[in-house]
Amino acid sequence: MNFRLISSILGHVIMLQSVLMLPSCLIGFLYHERQDALIYLAISVFCFLLGLCFKLVKPKSRTFYAREGFLAVSFSWIIISLLGALPLYFSGAIPSFTDALFEIISGFTTTGSSILTNVEALSHCNLFWRSFSHWIGGMGVLVFILAIMPMTGGSTMNLMKAESPGPSVGKLVPKIQHTAFLLYAIYFTLTTLEIILLVLGGMPLFDSLCHAFGTTGTGGFGIKNDSIAGYSAYLQNVITVFMFLSGVNFTFYYYILIRNPKNAFSLEEVRWYFLIYVGAVLLISLNLTANGAPFLHCLQKAAFQVASIMTTTGYATTDFNLWPQFSRTIMVLLMFMGACAGSTGGGIKVSRIVLYIKQVRKELMQQIHPRQICVVKMDKKGIEHSTIRSCNVFIMAYLVVFVISILLISLNGFDFTTNFTAVTATLNNIGPGLDMVGPCGNFSQFSVFSKYILMFDMLAGRLEILPMLILFHPATWKKH
Amino acid sequence: MNFRLISSILGHVIMLQSVLMLPSCLIGFLYHERQDALIYLAISVFCFLLGLCFKLVKPKSRTFYAREGFLAVSFSWIIISLLGALPLYFSGAIPSFTDALFEIISGFTTTGSSILTNVEALSHCNLFWRSFSHWIGGMGVLVFILAIMPMTGGSTMNLMKAESPGPSVGKLVPKIQHTAFLLYAIYFTLTTLEIILLVLGGMPLFDSLCHAFGTTGTGGFGIKNDSIAGYSAYLQNVITVFMFLSGVNFTFYYYILIRNPKNAFSLEEVRWYFLIYVGAVLLISLNLTANGAPFLHCLQKAAFQVASIMTTTGYATTDFNLWPQFSRTIMVLLMFMGACAGSTGGGIKVSRIVLYIKQVRKELMQQIHPRQICVVKMDKKGIEHSTIRSCNVFIMAYLVVFVISILLISLNGFDFTTNFTAVTATLNNIGPGLDMVGPCGNFSQFSVFSKYILMFDMLAGRLEILPMLILFHPATWKKH
Repeated sequence: MNFRLISSILGHVIMLQSVLMLPSCLIGFLYHERQDALIYLAISVFCFLLGLCFKLVKPKSRTFYAREGFLAVSFSWIIISLLGALPLYFSGAIPSFTDALFEIISGFTTTGSSILTNVEALSHCNLFWRSFSHWIGGMGVLVFILAIMPMTGGSTMNLMKAESPGPSVGKLVPKIQHTAFLLYAIYFTLTTLEIILLVLGGMPLFDSLCHAFGTTGTGGFGIKNDSIAGYSAYLQNVITVFMFLSGVNFTFYYYILIRNPKNAFSLEEVRWYFLIYVGAVLLISLNLTANGAPFLHCLQKAAFQVASIMTTTGYATTDFNLWPQFSRTIMVLLMFMGACAGSTGGGIKVSRIVLYIKQVRKELMQQIHPRQICVVKMDKKGIEHSTIRSCNVFIMAYLVVFVISILLISLNGFDFTTNFTAVTATLNNIGPGLDMVGPCGNFSQFSVFSKYILMFDMLAGRLEILPMLILFHPATWKKH
Repeated sequence: MNFRLISSILGHVIMLQSVLMLPSCLIGFLYHERQDALIYLAISVFCFLLGLCFKLVKPKSRTFYAREGFLAVSFSWIIISLLGALPLYFSGAIPSFTDALFEIISGFTTTGSSILTNVEALSHCNLFWRSFSHWIGGMGVLVFILAIMPMTGGSTMNLMKAESPGPSVGKLVPKIQHTAFLLYAIYFTLTTLEIILLVLGGMPLFDSLCHAFGTTGTGGFGIKNDSIAGYSAYLQNVITVFMFLSGVNFTFYYYILIRNPKNAFSLEEVRWYFLIYVGAVLLISLNLTANGAPFLHCLQKAAFQVASIMTTTGYATTDFNLWPQFSRTIMVLLMFMGACAGSTGGGIKVSRIVLYIKQVRKELMQQIHPRQICVVKMDKKGIEHSTIRSCNVFIMAYLVVFVISILLISLNGFDFTTNFTAVTATLNNIGPGLDMVGPCGNFSQFSVFSKYILMFDMLAGRLEILPMLILFHPATWKKH
């Protein structure tokens, strides 16, 4: 294992974080929160120096494999979380370090599960930092570094692969650096557009920034205790649209950008994503209308809530924990599915689900016509065996983590639905679950031990399991 | 599709059922339940005639593929269920045909979920028929036919494959007929041994018969309202041991039979099965002791209940729905795992779970050492790619059926835990779940629609999904 190379990458990441803390510091000064602003400044300086130390280790060779990519990514995420929790802890906003760490991991992994019971008590710079962490984590820190810095030698593709969600990471353009840059350009544009539309709808600029970060990063931290429920219908609808858009595979926007709408709209994953969204919204609206509420009102609530859960954002305008069981069940199932691969959303991803179902269909077809050669296709191309294998391994690793997590947090003694949906909400990077962790509940009741399990789940979910599991494999730590 | 051949196989199955109803008829006469006995006799005669009609269709060719095996098995199970429900319905024991069908499918599939609130009100011949259906379904009707009847031509292996649980069906001896015969011989011996031990412990012969059928078939229908709780500790322990033994891969007994204990005890699946059983019993006992109960008492309860759930039997001596959440969660997880492949138990099967985890480990190893060639091994032999593929397809098909079932029965409006564990308990052929369908609840509250979904799940679980899914594939019904 090339630990020297990993250390030098970590140096870049930590120095980047030092820069990324400066906007929060600025916000602090603007809102006359001098003390908090100084804390952010101090930690930013500390990060800068720490990053320099890491960079002092000079790698002997720059070649790296998937394993170095995995480790660099998992270490990076653990370190930015540890450092990112410091301002929340030292400013006194969250008196327990475990809780501060939980909160910021929830931020970076774009989960949005909170241990806070009263977010409105936070200072502006802390609120900004929480929301900004969503934006940073949404597209990924290493992808950002790849975008702004030419990395010489070695297959940097392995870094991007390890951090980007989805079964197979497509390069939009031949050069990695350009691909990373394009992704961030699209991301930035979406965010800016949303901020403008929110401000035009009368939302204060600060609120617009925070909510745009939470939406396009598919995070879900609100800055009000009632999440989005207090804003006007127009603002809720803008957020609905942008949540939905952030869950789309970014390849779609690339095709739009190069004026190839035919390719864009023929992406199979995006089409399924759209169909499932519309189907779920209609089913839930009809189910809610059965209780006598007007259809349009239900439609608007369902459109928001389904987009929020399916893209794994986690904003709430209504307590869906109180919905009828059929709608609640649809929500739980959507939690597992998640958004498109290559988006900022979490979950298992639409493309994987489609691939699983296609495998079953192929197997059935093969049994019915034993002599026919069947191939699993996606976007009219045969899927490579290695992609299918990695998809299959993913679901197994996912289930292993899921099962062990549920077992361990059941030691807390809470009810089955709470435990089940708490793990669902964190492993899929959603935010709220049902019952005690529903949209009106929070995660503060869990024991410290359970919180660490759920933190692991959030990281495992964001990095798609293997980069976190590899930390536990003895062979990773052996010298060879 | 060779429908004529399938029809001739169905003829055999229906005539076999006609014979299998005679013991219940006899029991009826012995216990002076004249009316019920005559009903069984009449339906037996009807089955005989119906079977003859099916056998009139002469197949043009006797070659058959996996697809004919699948269809023959799924049709057989649907037909024996429809016919098997008749006596329960016509004797007036279960006034609704849907309920009677649910009850007998639960019997044949060795699930043990009941819609009855008072089983003690049933006549002896009905009680016997319910329990006997577990015994018939445990090893399989087609395996029985293979054992007693030489089937000429065609790969009858496909019949056995489709009906026997597990990722790869091993022939114990080169000839299918001998393998089937051996399996039934072992099964019969286990059952007889248990009957003798139960009678020696003072259980009446009739009760012993019913409980032995329910145990070795890993079914779970009791003949008392409190299941097994009313019997002595000795009787409970005997049942514990035989539940555990019935969940062992029958290859183990074959090796013992041919005096090769070394091979028997080196079977990886059996070793895991044993370790997981012991681990779960200890964890639950410790968890229960924390509430102040004496350890030995908890150990006995846990040993019984874990064996009952892990082998997917479903007998109860205590209401584990009232256990602390940690123990409840272990029980739910064990429900999914199930027993060994090649046993009478249901669930995903220990060997598949082991294979899934080995795949994840292999993938991690492959990432850490990219140039090393890693192979998934079981019992020291490399696993064939086709076995891995069919295992992977199984879990996906399983999840698809699981998810759709939960969604559909959530229309009933019951709570999430009830729905989740109702599907878990039926798809894994266990019997009881948690909350409303816990050991002290039953399935009568569900709507007719939900009951049909759960019936499908029981059949899909027993036949390992694909034979039931193939019925829904349009290509199955096309002429070619």
